[in-house]
Amino acid sequence: MREIAVKNAEVADKVRELVNNRKPGYSLDAPFYASQEVFDIDMKEIFGKHWIYVGVSPDVPEAGDYMTVKIGEQPILIVRGEDNEIRAFHNVCRHRGARVCSGAKGSTGNLVCPYHQWTYNTQGNLLFAEHMGEGFNPQHHSLKPVHLKNVAGMLFICLAENPPADFDDLVATMTPYIAPHQVENTKVAAQIDIIEEGNWKLTMENNRECYHCTGNHPELTISLFAYSYGFAPSEGTDPGAEAYDKMIAQRHAEWEAMGLPSKEVERLDCAISGFRTQRMPLDKAGQAQTMTTESACKKLLADFTDSALGGLSFWTQPNSWHHFMADHIVTFCVLPISPGKTLVRTKWLVNKDAVEGVDYTVENLTHVWKQTNDQDRLLVEESQRGVVSDAYEPGPYSPYTETLVEKFSAWYVGRLKANLG
Amino acid sequence: MREIAVKNAEVADKVRELVNNRKPGYSLDAPFYASQEVFDIDMKEIFGKHWIYVGVSPDVPEAGDYMTVKIGEQPILIVRGEDNEIRAFHNVCRHRGARVCSGAKGSTGNLVCPYHQWTYNTQGNLLFAEHMGEGFNPQHHSLKPVHLKNVAGMLFICLAENPPADFDDLVATMTPYIAPHQVENTKVAAQIDIIEEGNWKLTMENNRECYHCTGNHPELTISLFAYSYGFAPSEGTDPGAEAYDKMIAQRHAEWEAMGLPSKEVERLDCAISGFRTQRMPLDKAGQAQTMTTESACKKLLADFTDSALGGLSFWTQPNSWHHFMADHIVTFCVLPISPGKTLVRTKWLVNKDAVEGVDYTVENLTHVWKQTNDQDRLLVEESQRGVVSDAYEPGPYSPYTETLVEKFSAWYVGRLKANLG
Amino acid sequence: MREIAVKNAEVADKVRELVNNRKPGYSLDAPFYASQEVFDIDMKEIFGKHWIYVGVSPDVPEAGDYMTVKIGEQPILIVRGEDNEIRAFHNVCRHRGARVCSGAKGSTGNLVCPYHQWTYNTQGNLLFAEHMGEGFNPQHHSLKPVHLKNVAGMLFICLAENPPADFDDLVATMTPYIAPHQVENTKVAAQIDIIEEGNWKLTMENNRECYHCTGNHPELTISLFAYSYGFAPSEGTDPGAEAYDKMIAQRHAEWEAMGLPSKEVERLDCAISGFRTQRMPLDKAGQAQTMTTESACKKLLADFTDSALGGLSFWTQPNSWHHFMADHIVTFCVLPISPGKTLVRTKWLVNKDAVEGVDYTVENLTHVWKQTNDQDRLLVEESQRGVVSDAYEPGPYSPYTETLVEKFSAWYVGRLKANLG
Repeated sequence: MREIAVKNAEVADKVRELVNNRKPGYSLDAPFYASQEVFDIDMKEIFGKHWIYVGVSPDVPEAGDYMTVKIGEQPILIVRGEDNEIRAFHNVCRHRGARVCSGAKGSTGNLVCPYHQWTYNTQGNLLFAEHMGEGFNPQHHSLKPVHLKNVAGMLFICLAENPPADFDDLVATMTPYIAPHQVENTKVAAQIDIIEEGNWKLTMENNRECYHCTGNHPELTISLFAYSYGFAPSEGTDPGAEAYDKMIAQRHAEWEAMGLPSKEVERLDCAISGFRTQRMPLDKAGQAQTMTTESACKKLLADFTDSALGGLSFWTQPNSWHHFMADHIVTFCVLPISPGKTLVRTKWLVNKDAVEGVDYTVENLTHVWKQTNDQDRLLVEESQRGVVSDAYEPGPYSPYTETLVEKFSAWYVGRLKANLG
Repeated sequence: MREIAVKNAEVADKVRELVNNRKPGYSLDAPFYASQEVFDIDMKEIFGKHWIYVGVSPDVPEAGDYMTVKIGEQPILIVRGEDNEIRAFHNVCRHRGARVCSGAKGSTGNLVCPYHQWTYNTQGNLLFAEHMGEGFNPQHHSLKPVHLKNVAGMLFICLAENPPADFDDLVATMTPYIAPHQVENTKVAAQIDIIEEGNWKLTMENNRECYHCTGNHPELTISLFAYSYGFAPSEGTDPGAEAYDKMIAQRHAEWEAMGLPSKEVERLDCAISGFRTQRMPLDKAGQAQTMTTESACKKLLADFTDSALGGLSFWTQPNSWHHFMADHIVTFCVLPISPGKTLVRTKWLVNKDAVEGVDYTVENLTHVWKQTNDQDRLLVEESQRGVVSDAYEPGPYSPYTETLVEKFSAWYVGRLKANLG
Repeated sequence: MREIAVKNAEVADKVRELVNNRKPGYSLDAPFYASQEVFDIDMKEIFGKHWIYVGVSPDVPEAGDYMTVKIGEQPILIVRGEDNEIRAFHNVCRHRGARVCSGAKGSTGNLVCPYHQWTYNTQGNLLFAEHMGEGFNPQHHSLKPVHLKNVAGMLFICLAENPPADFDDLVATMTPYIAPHQVENTKVAAQIDIIEEGNWKLTMENNRECYHCTGNHPELTISLFAYSYGFAPSEGTDPGAEAYDKMIAQRHAEWEAMGLPSKEVERLDCAISGFRTQRMPLDKAGQAQTMTTESACKKLLADFTDSALGGLSFWTQPNSWHHFMADHIVTFCVLPISPGKTLVRTKWLVNKDAVEGVDYTVENLTHVWKQTNDQDRLLVEESQRGVVSDAYEPGPYSPYTETLVEKFSAWYVGRLKANLG
C-alpha cells in the first residue's frame, strides 16, 4: 500500500456505474482514458490480476542473467536460475526495501542488495545478512515470488496470489503455434522503448484494428493484405474478400501440412486470459514485415527452410501482440505509466547464431515497426488530447474493421465488472 | 467528464464559504491561487460559462483556414468556412475522439481526422466515414459546435450551452470603438506565447494596475502618462492629475470629432460579460507603445492619416486586454493551464499590406511588450511563490492605484457566488 | 492554507492507525515513504512544529545580508539586522503576497518588495508603502516573524507559534561542544545542493547508520574507524570493539583536557528536540574526512593548533547532521520537496581568513562528501523504488548497526502520535 485511499468505496461505486452503463460497440467513456482513479483500478484489477506479457526467454539467455521490469509502481525481477528455470520475484529487499537489482538487465551469481549486501540466491532464498543477530531467521526473509509462465519462450507474469487458471488453455493452445519458431534459440537483436502520451487502452485499441493503416502506415501496409487484421466486410459484398478467404484456406492447408498450426483461434473476450492467434500470408514476397517484404535475416529461425511462412500473429489481453515470421519475431509489450502515459516496448528476435552486419542489419530489421510505432504514437496522442474534452462522447466502432477493438473493450469492461463485483 | 469527482459537493461547500467570506478591497485567499479544486471550479464556472477571448479574425484570413486553441483541457477548433463565416467546434472526432485538426494553425478544404479519415466540411457536418455500415447516420455525427462571436475582428467563444446574453451589450458598445481600426484588414505580424508559473488570476490582477509599472517596466513607461491605467489620486490632492484630466477631455473631444469613440466605458464588475474601454493619449510622440513612442509600422491601419491616435485600450473579464493604436494593435489572451501555470499569448497586428523589413520590423514592433511581459511574468511568479505560504493573508489593494484589480476580484468572486449558488 | 482539504479527518484517522500499528525495530510502512497525505502531515506536524536546521551564521556574515530557504512551500527569509542579530521572517509581502527577497542570498539596506516597492527594515517593520491612503496603518503590516535560534553559529528556525521549549536543553548542551570551533569566524567555502528522488525519511535513515558504508563509501571509510557511527556489537564478542572503546576513552580524556567536550550525549528519541553528539577520532592521520585523512585547510579553525581533533559529530531530529573538525566543518540540511523528492544541502566551512588556492582547494575540501552524498543518493533512490511496491513490508533493523535508525523512526512516529493526538 502506497497511498492512503480514503475514498476507495465511493470511487469503486462510480466506476461500477460507468462499467454497467457502457454501451457495447462504442468507445469507452472519458474517465476510462483520463482519470487517475480508474488508472489505479486498472493497475489493481487488470494488471494486478491477469497474466501480463513482460519479455522473452532470450532476455535472460544464461543462468544468472536477470532483467527488471515495472508493472505500474511494482518493481519486478526476472532471473534465470542455476537450474535454467526462469523465475520472477518482487525486486524488493526484505531488509529496508531497496531494489535488489538495478538496471534493465544484468548477470550475477547471487542477487546482492546494493544497500547492505543482503545476499539471495537465484531462487530467492536469503543466504547471508550481516549484523542481524541471533533471533534473525533468514528463511523468513526470502524474496517474495511472482508467478511466471514461460509459453514456448514468451514470458508472462501474474501479480495475483491466485492467477487466472484458464491461462493453461492459452498455454496448451499456443505452444504448438509458437514452438516451431524456437524462441529459446533466438536472441534479442534490438529493443526500442517508446513513451506514448496517452492511456494504455488507447494504445491497445489502436493495435486492434487496421482501419487506420491505409491512412497512416505506408511502410507497414507494403506487406499487408487489405483484408487481413480484422477487416471483414459483410458477406457477399466484396469479391476481393472472398478471394482472400480462399487464399487463406489454401495457405493454411499448406502450412499445417508443414507442421505449422495456422488456423484462427479467437478467445479475445470469452476468456479471462483472453487471446487470439492466426497465421496470415504476407503480400508480395510474403516473407516478412520489411520494406521489401523479403526476410530481414538470412539465417532463418529454427529449422525453417521456407522463407515465406507469412506471419503468425498472437494477441493477448491486456497488453501484448506478436508477429512470428520465418526469419524474425517482433514482440510488443504495453506497460501503463500513468493515466496519460504508456510505455510500448518492442523487441526484434533473430536466430541466435545470426551475425549482425552479415545476416541482418538492425536498421533493416527494425525500420517498418519503428516507423509504424511512431505513427501509432501520434494517433494515440491525438486521441488522448480529444477524449479528455467535455465534448467527447463514446463513438461507434466500425462493424467491419473494429470488431477486435470492441472485443478488447468488452473484455476490459467485463473484467472490471467481474472484479469490482 | 474526465475525473471521477466524488467530493464535488464538499469542495463546492468550502469554496462557497471562501467566496462568502471574501473581504472586499483585499487580495484573494490562498486557495483561489493555489488549490487544484478551485482551479477545476474556475475552469468549469468561469472559463466554461463566460465569453473567452481566443484570437482575431486575421488568425484565419482565408476560407478553409483554421486555428486550434485549448481552454483548459478542451481542444477547440476555429475555422473560417467557405461562406467566410468564422465558426468554432470542439476539436474532437465523433468516431473515437481524436483531435480532428492538429497544430496551431493550418489551411484545409475539408476537416479530415488523421485517425480513420472521417471527413467533415467547414460547417462541421460529417461528409464521409468509411466502413460504418448501413445503420450509421452521418447526420448524427457532426462536430459539436461552440458559440463564437466576432466583435469587429476580435474572436470570443463560449463553451456554455446558453452563453451570457449581456455579451450583446459589449458587442454593441465596443464595435464603434474597435471598428475604425479595421482588424479584418490586419495581419498577425508576430505572436509570442509565454508560460507564467503562477495562477491566471495573478496574471489578471497584474494586468489591472500600473502601481508596479514605475518600478518594473522601464520600456513600457516611456509612452505612458503617470495618471493613466487606473491611477486616480483622491480629488483635489494632485495638480498633475487635474492637468491630465483636462488633456484627456480635450483629446477625447478631438478624437470623437474624427469618428473615434474614446470616452471611458467601465462595466468591469457590474456585468456578467464585464469589460472596460477608453482611448488614452500616449506620452512624447504619442503614437505607439514603442521605445521611441513613434509608430512601429509606417503603413497605418485602416484609413488613418494621423499617427498620434494614442491607444484605445479594451479589457475583458476574465481573460484579455488589448491596445489599438494608429499603426498597430497588441492583443493579449490569458489561458490557464494549472493552478500554478498560465499561458499568456500576445499578438501584434499591422496593416495586412504592410511589408516586413520595409514598413516595420518584428523586433521594433514587439520589443516593449516582449520586455514588459517578461517583467510581469517574474512578478506573477514571485507572487505565486508567496501566496502559497501559510503565512500569506490577503493584503489591502491601494484605493488609488488598484481599483481595477478590486473590480477584477469582485467580478470573479461575484461570478463564483452566482454560479455556485 | 493552500489546498482545500475536505478529507483531513479521515486521513488523520488512517495515519493515526498506521502510527499506532508501527512495529518497533522495523522500517516504516510504505505510506510513510510514498503517500502525499503523509507528506502533507509531515510538513505540518514535523517540519511545521519542530526546530529545523537551515544554515549557519556565516551564510549572512554582514548586517543587511540575507538568505532565503523553503520549508516545504513556505518561503522563509533570514536576515542579519543592523544590530548584528539574525532574524527570520516569512518571505511574503503583506500587500499582495509576493516574495520580498528573491534569489538564494543577497545583501540589502532595507527589504524592498520587487512588486510595488513596499519597504521593510531588517527587523521586518514596514517603513513605506505608496498610494495606500490615510486609513492604512503600516504597523499592522510588518513581515511576519519566524522563531530563530542561533546555536553557536548553527541556525535553527521553528514555524510554530509556540516552539518546543526543550530546545533550550539542546542549546545549553551543545554550545560548549560547538563554540570552540567558532562557526561565526568561518566562511562558507562551498555549498552543494543535490536532489534525491526519495522520501526525506529515507535520506535520514540512510544518515543514521554506517552499515552501508563498507559496501558503498570507499572515500568516506578511509578516515572512519569500523566501530564508529553506530556500530555496537554485542558485548564481549568483538576484541576490536573493546580496543576501540579504550581508544575513545583515552582520546576523550585528552580532548576534554584541552577544553573540547567530547563525550556522547544521546537524546535522539527521548526529547522533542532530539539530538546526539560525540567527538570521534578519525583513522590514519586523524585530521579530517579527506582522501588523505589530513586537513583540507592549512589555516585551522578558531585558535586550534592541533590538527588531529577527530570529528565532533552532531545530529538533530528531524533534518540535520554536522561534522566539526580542526580545519573545517561539513554541515548537512535535509529539506523535503515532495513524497518522493528531497533536497540535501551540504556546506563546507573554513576559517574566514583562509585563502582559496593557498590554504585550501574546494575540490580537495569537498571531494569525499561530494562522492559520499552521491552514493547515498543512489541508495535512497533504490530504496524509494522498492518501498512503493505492494510487496514491500517493513524489514528488521540490525540490533548492532541500525539502532540510531530505529531512534529516528521511533522519534518520528512518537512525534506524530503526540501531535495527531
